[in-house]
Amino acid sequence: MSQIKKIGILTGGGDCPGLNAVIRGVARTAILKYGYEVIGYKYGYRGLYLNDFMPLTLDTVTGLIHKGGTILYTSNKDNLFDYQVEENGQLVKKDVSDVAIDNMKKEGVDALVVIGGDGTLTSARDFSRKGVKVIGVPKTIDNDLGGTDYTFGFNTAIEVVTEALDRLHTTAESHHRIMILEVMGRNAGWIALHSGIAGSADVILIPEIPFDYDKIVEKIEERRKLGRLFSIIVVAEGAKPKGGEVVVSKIVKDSPDPIRLGGIAHKLANELEQRIKTHEIRATILGHVQRGGSPSTYDRILSTRYGVKAVDLIAEGKFGNMVCLKGDDISYLPLEDVIGHEKYVDPNSDLVQVAKSVGISFGD
Amino acid sequence: MSQIKKIGILTGGGDCPGLNAVIRGVARTAILKYGYEVIGYKYGYRGLYLNDFMPLTLDTVTGLIHKGGTILYTSNKDNLFDYQVEENGQLVKKDVSDVAIDNMKKEGVDALVVIGGDGTLTSARDFSRKGVKVIGVPKTIDNDLGGTDYTFGFNTAIEVVTEALDRLHTTAESHHRIMILEVMGRNAGWIALHSGIAGSADVILIPEIPFDYDKIVEKIEERRKLGRLFSIIVVAEGAKPKGGEVVVSKIVKDSPDPIRLGGIAHKLANELEQRIKTHEIRATILGHVQRGGSPSTYDRILSTRYGVKAVDLIAEGKFGNMVCLKGDDISYLPLEDVIGHEKYVDPNSDLVQVAKSVGISFGD
Amino acid sequence: MSQIKKIGILTGGGDCPGLNAVIRGVARTAILKYGYEVIGYKYGYRGLYLNDFMPLTLDTVTGLIHKGGTILYTSNKDNLFDYQVEENGQLVKKDVSDVAIDNMKKEGVDALVVIGGDGTLTSARDFSRKGVKVIGVPKTIDNDLGGTDYTFGFNTAIEVVTEALDRLHTTAESHHRIMILEVMGRNAGWIALHSGIAGSADVILIPEIPFDYDKIVEKIEERRKLGRLFSIIVVAEGAKPKGGEVVVSKIVKDSPDPIRLGGIAHKLANELEQRIKTHEIRATILGHVQRGGSPSTYDRILSTRYGVKAVDLIAEGKFGNMVCLKGDDISYLPLEDVIGHEKYVDPNSDLVQVAKSVGISFGD
Amino acid sequence: MSQIKKIGILTGGGDCPGLNAVIRGVARTAILKYGYEVIGYKYGYRGLYLNDFMPLTLDTVTGLIHKGGTILYTSNKDNLFDYQVEENGQLVKKDVSDVAIDNMKKEGVDALVVIGGDGTLTSARDFSRKGVKVIGVPKTIDNDLGGTDYTFGFNTAIEVVTEALDRLHTTAESHHRIMILEVMGRNAGWIALHSGIAGSADVILIPEIPFDYDKIVEKIEERRKLGRLFSIIVVAEGAKPKGGEVVVSKIVKDSPDPIRLGGIAHKLANELEQRIKTHEIRATILGHVQRGGSPSTYDRILSTRYGVKAVDLIAEGKFGNMVCLKGDDISYLPLEDVIGHEKYVDPNSDLVQVAKSVGISFGD
Repeated sequence: MSQIKKIGILTGGGDCPGLNAVIRGVARTAILKYGYEVIGYKYGYRGLYLNDFMPLTLDTVTGLIHKGGTILYTSNKDNLFDYQVEENGQLVKKDVSDVAIDNMKKEGVDALVVIGGDGTLTSARDFSRKGVKVIGVPKTIDNDLGGTDYTFGFNTAIEVVTEALDRLHTTAESHHRIMILEVMGRNAGWIALHSGIAGSADVILIPEIPFDYDKIVEKIEERRKLGRLFSIIVVAEGAKPKGGEVVVSKIVKDSPDPIRLGGIAHKLANELEQRIKTHEIRATILGHVQRGGSPSTYDRILSTRYGVKAVDLIAEGKFGNMVCLKGDDISYLPLEDVIGHEKYVDPNSDLVQVAKSVGISFGD
Repeated sequence: MSQIKKIGILTGGGDCPGLNAVIRGVARTAILKYGYEVIGYKYGYRGLYLNDFMPLTLDTVTGLIHKGGTILYTSNKDNLFDYQVEENGQLVKKDVSDVAIDNMKKEGVDALVVIGGDGTLTSARDFSRKGVKVIGVPKTIDNDLGGTDYTFGFNTAIEVVTEALDRLHTTAESHHRIMILEVMGRNAGWIALHSGIAGSADVILIPEIPFDYDKIVEKIEERRKLGRLFSIIVVAEGAKPKGGEVVVSKIVKDSPDPIRLGGIAHKLANELEQRIKTHEIRATILGHVQRGGSPSTYDRILSTRYGVKAVDLIAEGKFGNMVCLKGDDISYLPLEDVIGHEKYVDPNSDLVQVAKSVGISFGD
Repeated sequence: MSQIKKIGILTGGGDCPGLNAVIRGVARTAILKYGYEVIGYKYGYRGLYLNDFMPLTLDTVTGLIHKGGTILYTSNKDNLFDYQVEENGQLVKKDVSDVAIDNMKKEGVDALVVIGGDGTLTSARDFSRKGVKVIGVPKTIDNDLGGTDYTFGFNTAIEVVTEALDRLHTTAESHHRIMILEVMGRNAGWIALHSGIAGSADVILIPEIPFDYDKIVEKIEERRKLGRLFSIIVVAEGAKPKGGEVVVSKIVKDSPDPIRLGGIAHKLANELEQRIKTHEIRATILGHVQRGGSPSTYDRILSTRYGVKAVDLIAEGKFGNMVCLKGDDISYLPLEDVIGHEKYVDPNSDLVQVAKSVGISFGD
Repeated sequence: MSQIKKIGILTGGGDCPGLNAVIRGVARTAILKYGYEVIGYKYGYRGLYLNDFMPLTLDTVTGLIHKGGTILYTSNKDNLFDYQVEENGQLVKKDVSDVAIDNMKKEGVDALVVIGGDGTLTSARDFSRKGVKVIGVPKTIDNDLGGTDYTFGFNTAIEVVTEALDRLHTTAESHHRIMILEVMGRNAGWIALHSGIAGSADVILIPEIPFDYDKIVEKIEERRKLGRLFSIIVVAEGAKPKGGEVVVSKIVKDSPDPIRLGGIAHKLANELEQRIKTHEIRATILGHVQRGGSPSTYDRILSTRYGVKAVDLIAEGKFGNMVCLKGDDISYLPLEDVIGHEKYVDPNSDLVQVAKSVGISFGD
């Protein structure tokens, strides 16, 4: 048993529904079950470096379970082991992790709960290696973190996408159109796969299964013959044609007009328009709407379970671990073992086969 | 490998979001993956007895994934092994299962997918014992069927209840009230437990943990001291005080005025009003709203997975089984092993401990 | 032009989605447009009597537009002109309005925005008669206040009821049931009328149109002949049979068991069960779920418009008025003219005729 | 009184939530109230030309009130008065309206209900001029049709946009970002204006009020000084800078890579990034998600009222008119008077002033 009196929390990386619910779960458990004091560092690791924090009490975390975002704010890519600071009027990169550790000591913070994705958790591991008592909580809207079956925020994201698919369906059907919806998933197609099944897509394109334009056309043609004069395509942003490259969506800023190099959704619309003359084709990129807002019931429960487990692990002295979901059980495993292991959709997995069984094409 | 050409489906028991999604999953997989013909018996087993069915084609199941209810209709308590029929002008109970089996033979139906709860699946097992090729799909809004971690409809139910709790919260807080919400769960408290955590309840009362009125009062008083001048109580319909009886909600019809013997929500309101003078208390019984409507994203996927698996089992000749969810895997187990095994909330389970960790009282 | 420097706000009566949005609209307009200071009295008029208030700044009202409830809390039936106080150890009723007026003077509060229903606004008028600079904002979930076409909260309520009707529909259809939904509306049937049309009810029963049980049975029978083997009935709590009394739902507390005298929904279920043998009948009472939670888009806009207008009227010196909606225009009229004028559904109104045109019966 | 026995309906133009609800309202009223026979022409005017129709009965319109899309399908830009047909192997444009009129006569269709926007209604007027008994029903997701206060579909669209804004808010706040949301509205800013108020936007940009980039920067800077480190901008697709051009979003198809010339959202992001270094800026284009799906409660009622009124006008012999909403009343006015009158946001209107009063900038 470790002698813990005070713990800190921080959130790193992109927004994800359930962050506040984890913070609330951590704070309430720490205060009510263990009598710990709790503080929240602001803006992720930056707060740890600047010793910028706020006390977390029952009052500050009240009402947080259904609130999107993070009351602790967050920052992207703040790595204290390779941090940009100004020295002698120049910007240089250096390891400032000891400043952070000193800050924790100074405030009497005995242990740290770090909520974040692969980058944030890599730093958590590095602090753990230096002796800091750390527990990680996995966060990724894309569900692509290794070591855990599901992460909070993912269920909310697929609910948002599925609702969008429901809306696009009526338009596709009324107009006999091909509707393309681009969803998040740069390297892993979990969102496209789940929402595509739930939203009754006809074609799902994911990074793990390179596709063939002609196979998509075949599927659309096959539907036409059955009297289905419309089709819905869900495409993960990282999906790519066989032998092709990922089409990155970006804005070219130095052009006279702001040119947005369309992502895969526009590439796809373009290519299909060359091949299909019987339908109008429309592409929508759902974007940041997938990342924010109030968490779903499923995610509220999962976030709360993660938050409670993180503090239980602290109380048990099991540091250097990340909480995770295995089946329906909350468990944990060493941070050392999870860093750098992205979780991809296995083309032979049950869920892909389920999708194919009900007639969904992956363009392969 | 069995030589299957035609399969039948039926749905029995109460409404449950996802029934149509299972039917669609079965029909699409049977038609597209295996080339089977598919028919749907109407009104559960009654349709099997009366040979009342409809063909299920790609057209008839289109758009069903998000549609609540069952296009095959359903009936409660139709047990063909002990069925009420008219004989010589008198109503008698007899075993008419052979009529059903003859009907299946007559129509060339090689196998049957039965979607239902414990009662419906008991008959499925009995038909299996008589040699009928049966696959069961578990259905219970209450999530209290043994052998499977989750059943479709449950996630939708807890979303409906959680949304109701969110709404009651604002009123409770503005008025400093105690709001009681009675939810489904006659023998098992799964809905109350999950939605209570997600909806930030202060007290959760479930059948598995008999409660003490004074403990509830204590919790409310403890909150008052912290400045929380309102409380939310979620109570499963089958929750009961220690040493007390279940308070059944029913309508006494032969009274001059329709007297509704209030369920546990009203009993609870009544008892708390004797003990607490500082708050107004209001009770709401959510009722059938929990059972119907469009399934959630989670339930659409689970229903589809169940439907696909049922047909895969038929194709593999694995009859007499029920599909189930274990962790994140769809699997199956013998109908013989699941009948009669209700699944209760274990008071020592992780989820109850999670609830207690964040400060929720179970009145125990 | 009045010389205003500081204004107060209070909210009275039951919860209603949009209260916080009005408070935000008042505060932001007062601060940003006119440079007023703003305070909020807590618990309605009680706060005015006890001089219990909080400052309202841009910070305190941030994020309020979508938040249900009222951050100022509320109280029912606190009438400062006939207020219960303790005097010489005895509870007596007396007029304490001058205490409130003194408190306003003491704090330098030049004008008051009162948000509430008929009772709350009656006191507002009485304060106005005593020279207090008052603007009223109409609040009633039931939409039954005279002088305004719509009040905030009403649209949210009918969205909640309509969603419940959508859910009940699938169950009614799958089980061939008669589903009864009791909704708010003690004296006026606006919620039942609007949600009944939107939720595709077959029968709508409202206080303004006394019904005949046999007419309801006729409608159900007529549907049965058309192959519609289910029916949905929406009944306002104050609906009553021709020549009959309103059936009040209440809990008889001094009985050994908590006996809830069922409201009209149960009375109706009871009566119909005597007359109809072909269907199961189920009743649900939606209750407080209709009053709380996040306001709809429509209500957020209406609340904001009301809040802005209230402050504009203060700036223009037009006191003693209530803001109102006429068609699509925000306007105002004297508090003296609106008090005591409930707004009922006219049985010959366009909307009732629309309902009848699409086949909805009112049981008349 | 005209002697009507049979009526036809058609839907033209883009998808819009409530189309099916209007169709249902027309059909049920025609059948139940007046005993008319009803048919639905498919694909808008094309069905009238090809005599391609389906009978509309109580059965075919059941369940339509909450179903998005149109069961009659629709087509864009099919003008029978200038229609592309093949003649002698060549595509030529000619007036085929007489073919349509002959088809109506052949089928005994006495009157026509035309549901559509300005283009579709222009043809309706032209048919009316030729003696066809026509009633128009206004449809525009953008709410920019003259002669009516609101059109169905608009309330649903602003609910979708407002929900998206709620989601973007949490991300903006957690990351201290500027989030830009581009919504529909090529010529009129109604959607941006309404959803911007409801979704608590900081800046609303609409076609009717040309904006100044520096004014937007000023607003963001002003917020920063108040401690608001994020901002939400809603921009209608047709919004433009003072003296600037509308930035049309389009895909350049003949480029090697699919180049999407970003719409105003990307232009805006680009320009603001030049001027603001303290925030990350993200743009989302909501697209077709705004046009489809199940109609809101408000739109279901409005659609039903329109449908009923259209048939009432037919029964009264008041042809050549369009139904409309004035305040809270359903009325009508001559098609001759409404064609070509777009309805724009008046910069001095009450609603723009309301937005400004609560601190929203229009960049002017």
